[in-house]
Amino acid sequence: MKTIKVILLVYAVSLCMMNAHSQEADSTVLKKFYTEALTSKIAHDNLKQLCKNYKGRIGGSEKSLEAIKWAEELLKSMGLDTVYKQELFVRNWHRGEKETGIIYSSKLGEMHTHICALGGSIGTIDKGIKAEVVEVHNFDELKELGDKVKGKIVFFNRAADPTFIYTFQAYGSAADQRFHGPVEAAKYGAIGVLVRSVTLITDTFPHTGIMRYDKDFEKLPSSALSTIDADSLSNWLKKDPALQFYMKTNCYEYAEAKSYNVIGEIRGSEFPKEIIAFGGHLDAWDNTEGAHDDGIGVIQTIEVLRLFKTLKIKPKHTLRVVVFMDEEMAQRGAHKYESSVKAKSEKHLAAIESDRGGFTPFGFSLDMNEDAFKKVQKWKTLFLPYGLFLFEKGGSGVDIGPLKKQGIPLFALITDSQRYFDYQHAASDTFESVNKREMQLGSASIAALVYLIDKYGL
Amino acid sequence: MKTIKVILLVYAVSLCMMNAHSQEADSTVLKKFYTEALTSKIAHDNLKQLCKNYKGRIGGSEKSLEAIKWAEELLKSMGLDTVYKQELFVRNWHRGEKETGIIYSSKLGEMHTHICALGGSIGTIDKGIKAEVVEVHNFDELKELGDKVKGKIVFFNRAADPTFIYTFQAYGSAADQRFHGPVEAAKYGAIGVLVRSVTLITDTFPHTGIMRYDKDFEKLPSSALSTIDADSLSNWLKKDPALQFYMKTNCYEYAEAKSYNVIGEIRGSEFPKEIIAFGGHLDAWDNTEGAHDDGIGVIQTIEVLRLFKTLKIKPKHTLRVVVFMDEEMAQRGAHKYESSVKAKSEKHLAAIESDRGGFTPFGFSLDMNEDAFKKVQKWKTLFLPYGLFLFEKGGSGVDIGPLKKQGIPLFALITDSQRYFDYQHAASDTFESVNKREMQLGSASIAALVYLIDKYGL
Repeated sequence: MKTIKVILLVYAVSLCMMNAHSQEADSTVLKKFYTEALTSKIAHDNLKQLCKNYKGRIGGSEKSLEAIKWAEELLKSMGLDTVYKQELFVRNWHRGEKETGIIYSSKLGEMHTHICALGGSIGTIDKGIKAEVVEVHNFDELKELGDKVKGKIVFFNRAADPTFIYTFQAYGSAADQRFHGPVEAAKYGAIGVLVRSVTLITDTFPHTGIMRYDKDFEKLPSSALSTIDADSLSNWLKKDPALQFYMKTNCYEYAEAKSYNVIGEIRGSEFPKEIIAFGGHLDAWDNTEGAHDDGIGVIQTIEVLRLFKTLKIKPKHTLRVVVFMDEEMAQRGAHKYESSVKAKSEKHLAAIESDRGGFTPFGFSLDMNEDAFKKVQKWKTLFLPYGLFLFEKGGSGVDIGPLKKQGIPLFALITDSQRYFDYQHAASDTFESVNKREMQLGSASIAALVYLIDKYGL
Repeated sequence: MKTIKVILLVYAVSLCMMNAHSQEADSTVLKKFYTEALTSKIAHDNLKQLCKNYKGRIGGSEKSLEAIKWAEELLKSMGLDTVYKQELFVRNWHRGEKETGIIYSSKLGEMHTHICALGGSIGTIDKGIKAEVVEVHNFDELKELGDKVKGKIVFFNRAADPTFIYTFQAYGSAADQRFHGPVEAAKYGAIGVLVRSVTLITDTFPHTGIMRYDKDFEKLPSSALSTIDADSLSNWLKKDPALQFYMKTNCYEYAEAKSYNVIGEIRGSEFPKEIIAFGGHLDAWDNTEGAHDDGIGVIQTIEVLRLFKTLKIKPKHTLRVVVFMDEEMAQRGAHKYESSVKAKSEKHLAAIESDRGGFTPFGFSLDMNEDAFKKVQKWKTLFLPYGLFLFEKGGSGVDIGPLKKQGIPLFALITDSQRYFDYQHAASDTFESVNKREMQLGSASIAALVYLIDKYGL
């Protein structure tokens, strides 16, 4: 009896020591990731190249193909084991020439505003449209007005709710106007749509974003208006409800075009057929450099591979970066990737997405079963010295989301959201708006998570 | 026996319910603070006024007196119970005309650099100084060189260590060069000092900050050099060690001048003689608008009083905002306040400082005894929905620090530090560099903490 107790005690103590030892080693490795990320300039330089040389890389564009080539060459230059592309087809929408939006009031004069066509919108005919404006704040108001909006421009002016702390919820409180507004307005015979930019700041940048048509209703030319101009238009309407708005947008859509996801891998030393995937999307709205949305996600996840290579950490499983195409329009890259995983029966330990801006990381949102969730909780203390405290259940991201049906554990990097919608989908989303340290804390955090998944599984 | 058990059970259950009820009420009140802070424009407008109309408000300056008047009038306009000033004397140092710093190399040509005199430095004589430059990275290197620096300009070029996650530690890893460098260089007969700006970004802004002389050593004219220029100078020195640097600085110091702390109060309904104090410092280096350092601290803590007034929350204890003067030079405001508290035997429940920039708040640093510390820990869950997760032991701040010897529990608002030193003490610290939401999350967090201290004591 005594012997057994001693044996059990020794066993327990050695388990504790092993654990202590392995924890210590993990914290040392994590420190290396963060140190290398914070002292290297490479990722920041890569982001600059992507932003400055490949602005306008919306899916289907020439620039998007150039950006794909750039990403492929960058991955090939890194000494990876495999680099390849996944062919897919994307919508091929073009903004055309810069838009014009002018308020004409016989009482107040005229004022040029900052507008941009919503993504996927048709253009006005060559002459543009000029019509009275009806301001509404939700679809109920619109329904109540009914036929009164016939022949007019419907102006959706509900501001994003600033009382949400996590700004993606604030975005969610207003984005319906942009996404569904054009169809809703068409139902009552409107001829055009203006939408208040879905952002929490007061600025002169129109913020674009995708909208959808419905085959049963007329396609209306639809534009985003900057928040400052939206406030002005609303004020002018109070003084002169008969004012008119002139909108000229020049967008058009070609037949679908060939495009690609780009993939790079470090082959696993023990389980090469088991994959840990991570990525962001390369496409960005044509009116922006797409730094936070989502140059950051691409660069951070490519940086993960560089960190492993530079630190000579050899993973047991295959590490795969996926540079997704077409997140903004129709997520064809995401669906292509998912169907490829399924077709090849590729086993994935996990997939991680970075698409919430290059801001200070707070943790990861976890979309996985209870066992995996509990496992991840044990890693929390390792991340606390780096300020990551959030490891909660929640959604992942649009690009890895389709993998959920295959039961793959999904992670999204959660960052400080306060400034994200200041930049999203607007010309202000520039390389200069990114702080290198914030971005690199994110890169290291993803690398650290990948390291722990590789070591302990899920 | 049974009866007692039942009574005890009922007592325990009602305690639990009371607790649940009181927690619920607290969370409701906190939500109100955050909602009002995030929807009001007042604090942001106040910050704009302070930054744009009172740039150059270093202690002793005309602008600082104007800013004091502005703060006093702002407080008086708020319907507080008491507004008054505390007289004190401050150093009266002036930068004078903009500085000139030029590299002259017979091999490489000449280059104008971005320099600014360190705070408290003497100026060069009218002609400026021109001398060879010796680059060092720490005081040991300087000591080793010894007399070799005689008649030369010592260039301290050790960069802040970017591997620290909390950037105040990175700052601490390099600020000794600025603070003590001039005296150390004087020991070996140098005639001037250049210090690499203590910041983590690569920019063209020189970042100033206080330095100290020692009566036993000659006072050397000392300037900060932007990090980009510091890198250039270092590179040029490698190619031409005989190059010369021309420095002309025009600062001078008058006799000490009269100045003031400004104080505003809401009188406590039950314990008017017991005070919860909170504040930031009004003075800022003359080369900057002083938005993050520390217009934010002043505006946030004034905003705390506005939140209580607007929400009609009547505190039991007296709430006092202290607008401190002279944090940057000699902390005379801080010492004046502490001696006044002592002289009047004013009881303080707590003092809270905001002086770490207007960035997303992470929590509070706590400098207090174990009992108070434990009490604060119970409030953590109330703050988590707002992203505040750090409630750890640590220092408070320079302005409330002197109160520690009176045993007063001290709190410092801890914010995301990644960008703080991008702006600190440089012309880039502008109103525009502040995100309204980040600032207001801080205001509401301080108000929430004040509310809990007022309700539960410490």
